[in-house]
Amino acid sequence: MELITIIGLTAALFTTVSLFPQLLKVWKTKSTKDISTGMFTLFCGGVLLWFVYGVFVKDFPIIFANALAFVQALIILAFKMKFK
Amino acid sequence: MELITIIGLTAALFTTVSLFPQLLKVWKTKSTKDISTGMFTLFCGGVLLWFVYGVFVKDFPIIFANALAFVQALIILAFKMKFK
Repeated sequence: MELITIIGLTAALFTTVSLFPQLLKVWKTKSTKDISTGMFTLFCGGVLLWFVYGVFVKDFPIIFANALAFVQALIILAFKMKFK
Repeated sequence: MELITIIGLTAALFTTVSLFPQLLKVWKTKSTKDISTGMFTLFCGGVLLWFVYGVFVKDFPIIFANALAFVQALIILAFKMKFK
């Protein structure tokens, strides 16, 4: 595999996996005061569009990474709505 | 411009701009208790790698969007370090 492909895949892995510690934190603490609703709303919209983009260009890594990011960001947003 | 290009650019705009409300929130409140250090560390690493990827493939939108995301995420992380 070329170096540039490895860099791209590692980048995708990092940004997708990054949401998990935040999800775990709100799940455990049920506290979301410092989390911005604006951030997670825009982020959900963004990764949903990336998902649509991935479907259009038939790129499985884009589809998979953004579907995973969308689900995690949506759960964080749901926690934010529930525990203001 | 093709629809798929518009979708991709809008997606990039959303995910990049999404960090700004969070940055503004921690700036104003100086409170970061509910923000995950793990999330913003992994996210900083991820967008930095996307930036390197963009430089490699000479793609200006990838370079620009991820440079902007990196700076914002790094400031949020600095606030998290300063105001535990």
